[in-house]
Amino acid sequence: MTNPSAVLYAPNDIRIEDRPIPEPGAGEVLVNVRAIGICGSDVHYYEHGRIGPYIVEHPMVVGHESAGVIVGVGIDVSPTRIGQTVALEPGVPCRNCKECLAGRYNLCPDVVFFATPPVDGSIAGYVTIDARFAHPAPENLSFEAAAMAEPVSVGVWAARKAGITAGDRVLVTGAGPIGLYAAQVARAFGAVEITVTDVSSFRLEKARSLGFAAERAGEPAETTFDVLLECSGAAVALDGGMKRLAPAGRVVLVGMGADSVPIDVPLVQGKELTISGIFRYANTYPTALALLASGEVDAEAVITHRFDIAHTEDALTLARRDPESLKAIVLPEA
Amino acid sequence: MTNPSAVLYAPNDIRIEDRPIPEPGAGEVLVNVRAIGICGSDVHYYEHGRIGPYIVEHPMVVGHESAGVIVGVGIDVSPTRIGQTVALEPGVPCRNCKECLAGRYNLCPDVVFFATPPVDGSIAGYVTIDARFAHPAPENLSFEAAAMAEPVSVGVWAARKAGITAGDRVLVTGAGPIGLYAAQVARAFGAVEITVTDVSSFRLEKARSLGFAAERAGEPAETTFDVLLECSGAAVALDGGMKRLAPAGRVVLVGMGADSVPIDVPLVQGKELTISGIFRYANTYPTALALLASGEVDAEAVITHRFDIAHTEDALTLARRDPESLKAIVLPEA
Amino acid sequence: MTNPSAVLYAPNDIRIEDRPIPEPGAGEVLVNVRAIGICGSDVHYYEHGRIGPYIVEHPMVVGHESAGVIVGVGIDVSPTRIGQTVALEPGVPCRNCKECLAGRYNLCPDVVFFATPPVDGSIAGYVTIDARFAHPAPENLSFEAAAMAEPVSVGVWAARKAGITAGDRVLVTGAGPIGLYAAQVARAFGAVEITVTDVSSFRLEKARSLGFAAERAGEPAETTFDVLLECSGAAVALDGGMKRLAPAGRVVLVGMGADSVPIDVPLVQGKELTISGIFRYANTYPTALALLASGEVDAEAVITHRFDIAHTEDALTLARRDPESLKAIVLPEA
Amino acid sequence: MTNPSAVLYAPNDIRIEDRPIPEPGAGEVLVNVRAIGICGSDVHYYEHGRIGPYIVEHPMVVGHESAGVIVGVGIDVSPTRIGQTVALEPGVPCRNCKECLAGRYNLCPDVVFFATPPVDGSIAGYVTIDARFAHPAPENLSFEAAAMAEPVSVGVWAARKAGITAGDRVLVTGAGPIGLYAAQVARAFGAVEITVTDVSSFRLEKARSLGFAAERAGEPAETTFDVLLECSGAAVALDGGMKRLAPAGRVVLVGMGADSVPIDVPLVQGKELTISGIFRYANTYPTALALLASGEVDAEAVITHRFDIAHTEDALTLARRDPESLKAIVLPEA
Repeated sequence: MTNPSAVLYAPNDIRIEDRPIPEPGAGEVLVNVRAIGICGSDVHYYEHGRIGPYIVEHPMVVGHESAGVIVGVGIDVSPTRIGQTVALEPGVPCRNCKECLAGRYNLCPDVVFFATPPVDGSIAGYVTIDARFAHPAPENLSFEAAAMAEPVSVGVWAARKAGITAGDRVLVTGAGPIGLYAAQVARAFGAVEITVTDVSSFRLEKARSLGFAAERAGEPAETTFDVLLECSGAAVALDGGMKRLAPAGRVVLVGMGADSVPIDVPLVQGKELTISGIFRYANTYPTALALLASGEVDAEAVITHRFDIAHTEDALTLARRDPESLKAIVLPEA
Repeated sequence: MTNPSAVLYAPNDIRIEDRPIPEPGAGEVLVNVRAIGICGSDVHYYEHGRIGPYIVEHPMVVGHESAGVIVGVGIDVSPTRIGQTVALEPGVPCRNCKECLAGRYNLCPDVVFFATPPVDGSIAGYVTIDARFAHPAPENLSFEAAAMAEPVSVGVWAARKAGITAGDRVLVTGAGPIGLYAAQVARAFGAVEITVTDVSSFRLEKARSLGFAAERAGEPAETTFDVLLECSGAAVALDGGMKRLAPAGRVVLVGMGADSVPIDVPLVQGKELTISGIFRYANTYPTALALLASGEVDAEAVITHRFDIAHTEDALTLARRDPESLKAIVLPEA
Repeated sequence: MTNPSAVLYAPNDIRIEDRPIPEPGAGEVLVNVRAIGICGSDVHYYEHGRIGPYIVEHPMVVGHESAGVIVGVGIDVSPTRIGQTVALEPGVPCRNCKECLAGRYNLCPDVVFFATPPVDGSIAGYVTIDARFAHPAPENLSFEAAAMAEPVSVGVWAARKAGITAGDRVLVTGAGPIGLYAAQVARAFGAVEITVTDVSSFRLEKARSLGFAAERAGEPAETTFDVLLECSGAAVALDGGMKRLAPAGRVVLVGMGADSVPIDVPLVQGKELTISGIFRYANTYPTALALLASGEVDAEAVITHRFDIAHTEDALTLARRDPESLKAIVLPEA
Repeated sequence: MTNPSAVLYAPNDIRIEDRPIPEPGAGEVLVNVRAIGICGSDVHYYEHGRIGPYIVEHPMVVGHESAGVIVGVGIDVSPTRIGQTVALEPGVPCRNCKECLAGRYNLCPDVVFFATPPVDGSIAGYVTIDARFAHPAPENLSFEAAAMAEPVSVGVWAARKAGITAGDRVLVTGAGPIGLYAAQVARAFGAVEITVTDVSSFRLEKARSLGFAAERAGEPAETTFDVLLECSGAAVALDGGMKRLAPAGRVVLVGMGADSVPIDVPLVQGKELTISGIFRYANTYPTALALLASGEVDAEAVITHRFDIAHTEDALTLARRDPESLKAIVLPEA
């Protein structure tokens, strides 16, 4: 095929289609995509056809954690970029609204984000993207590691919001890909004691192999922390984690799950906790790529399965089929 | 009486007793108390004999919003302080623990706080207090205004935690004394649009007379805000207020009420809201006194009733008797 | 004339020319300019033909503190904006570079700034500007007050960099237009004691009339401050001001003057002072306009002279002719 | 000897005397000192008998970078602390002044600091110190590594003031002990590109062996940085380093040298640089000890010479005798 693309038609109906190779517009690059990570949101669209108010009403290419090689440039982009390995930051903001001008472009109401309806995603042979959001990858990075700049960016953003710095003790609840990357990012920010919790022995073992303390969620535990990165989306993890924070502790709500969670107000007041929600990330890609390149964040350790594009559906169903899986990658040229 | 003191023996059992005038210890001053504000916590102890884990097991003097004149000094305190009008910061921390050394002395686990069992409070003719926590009042302040440095400090602390600055739009939910002082503090911090909500027409009218927009709680409204100072303790006010925040909005949990409140996680994440709990205050008294002295915070406008010490019980029951009351003051020498 | 414009040909050679009315491009508005303030940089270009590396090599319209009415719109701009009174933020950044995406668009290397060679300024009947940088003015603002959003923005930016908040004691060195606006902004940010210094009795009197303490520069003085806004550009003012700061004091370098100034390192270290340079401003216009509309910043008090466009040269020479002048305004339609 | 102590009588006149073992007062511990680092300030007192306003008027024990074992406790200190290995934070603040209560206890005007006249220092067999400032060392730390918590604290404080975080590019000018520790601390805070400059090939080689890029000071160089930690005290290093900063760069003045250094104001303004002075440190010891225990800061790599207490004078003259020296340690029990 010229440009094989993983197109979601309806829940549980994904098709690999050949689409024309797109033309890069002004300020854009054409990227030959070489690796795409599967995110929980891709799986959610595949299973439910929607996430909250975002509904797949027309066939949509899925995927948004991607890296590749620039093979063409539009007007206003230097042709010297052709050949560059790039990690694709999937949300391109308007750059003109109040939020963008304030440096909070992740909150831009007009952002165009891969695989958020009706915008096509990046499980494809070729995509176009704003040149500014195709970030040059350090030389030694593999395509799949460069693609991980997306989930690692979530960790970087969470660490920034939490103000993690040297000496901090950090609790990460949830040892899925986001939690395992966030824990590594926390360490790169200088955290000295990092504990990861989960209900899965497999995931806890993975956390241990990355050098973290690992605890089964819900079991009695004593350690106190300065920061809670809640990556599970479970209300009980949030509540339990908050109870373990020291005075002036900081909480970041990373995981998505229940729409409404109860907060223990006397606890939040008595210890003067601060709780921040995060939505995607802004200005994180260079840092995420630097941490991946230095090895401070080990991309490969979290990647457990790889698929060619013809088996994208297997990648999307992996999590429910195999509890001993973490991050799945689609390699279009495999 | 030598030192008339309002002593709580049990719920609904408060007695005015004569106690000996205390001796100031090393580093302490003896203060002739001239005005004490009644706080909701005093009322709560009066009605229930406890607040959460703090139980009145022995007779305890109530009251902690106080001002007076220094009439004696202990060792290590300059006798030149005698005659000074002072506002009493009611919580004296250990100054030696991790929290104190970090400047968060309000989180000191060993703080000694007026009228928090078993520590006696300040509805009395005379009290002793650490000299450092008897803050000299600007010359033109009345005793009752100086006593208001305590609830105004709550507003200052909330404004600092919220990072209120010039141009901010601020929503204050709850127009009791704390809310009305906090709204004035927000204006002093530079907020340009301030709306106060409540269910009481009397309180809304008071808010209006102070120059604020006033809205009946729960009625449909459109304005968007940058900051929510939740001063009502009502879960519905928190939820409704958060929905009206702009991206990157900041919430401070000031009011106390339900122990557990539900938080709309997608909202907190989608707008990247930050929620902070506050517990008392630290390093606020000089600022609170300056705002009272300059008139930016109008102490008198919130004071609706005054009592002599013999009628302390009337002061404690005022709120449930008279819906058109706000702050009650006890004047021991009246 | 159709579009009278004040064009600088060479030092001391300014000519009022009729130029064609420009066409608004995509995303731009056409503005009928109604008031333009004269800034020291305009005077500097007029007198020297350059500011540092910025050299007037071709005839250039001067002026950049401007307000007017939208009379036309380009593609992608709503025609409903026609008729709007707007303050023109004079620097339009690229919105695509690292600095812009980080919210520091004032540091954009590709900014296009009115009256910075080779870009034409705004002393003219009509100019075009990016619609996003034509800020709607509150209804009650005069054109000349709206034009003052530019120098007031410098004050807002300085106050933000200094972190001025309620209770701060602020020293403003230099009582020219920037200093007088910055002092008012500091008050709006909550500063409680503000002292302004200058060598001119006229300017000190003006400072006093605005409610500030005023001191003759260089005379012995005792007061201590938390913040120094150095608006004079004089090395001696910086040094003297820094010596009056309390521990953890903050200094903002607002004024331009000597290229190199000596810093007292033991002082900066011993008191842990922080010194910040500022360059223009970012995201300040809405706040500046709000402060002007509320009267917290009095635009008129600093405006001492007004000229029609034919007398632009008189406006540019005013400062050297009349020591009792502050801000001059050019009114093209006068 | 019972308590051999290195007493400075006058410039170049240091004597090892036997002094009585002091008694720990209330809240104090008695420490058997096991390792003391020699700091530039000790050398300066030895050579000149003064540092600025601090003059050695009476015989004074020198030394303030120390660690040892608790061998006795005063009233109000738990006897369970006997036997603990501790790093001694040498400055004990009053804990009662405005600066202390604000968490800036390093700026306390009444701090009592080892070896700052007239306070005796810690090159001795036994010293007493406030129990709160005798920080328990992690188990695996040697005494000399624990003593290095003092210079490492300077690095931690500099990194905090600079806000160093993951992804930052940091320039450290000056590869003496402070610079080499600060560079390691910067790495622990997440800095990804760290360059160290000096004029000494020996020191540059040491920097390289610690994994840093090393550049001869003054040679042309291209790299741009986000942060400058100026650790040399040389005005030329500060000026050159600032010119290499990116927009919004942060400078921390760590090194002491010339009293007055020229600052390039247009540079500071044009790039909006922030310059902070630091004075000792506050709340850093636990972090410094954690970084030493984890190996992120290698104490030993910077220690080049060790002396018994009888040879303290050799330790103090080492730097001027041997250009290939860095940190000297005195081991009282050697």
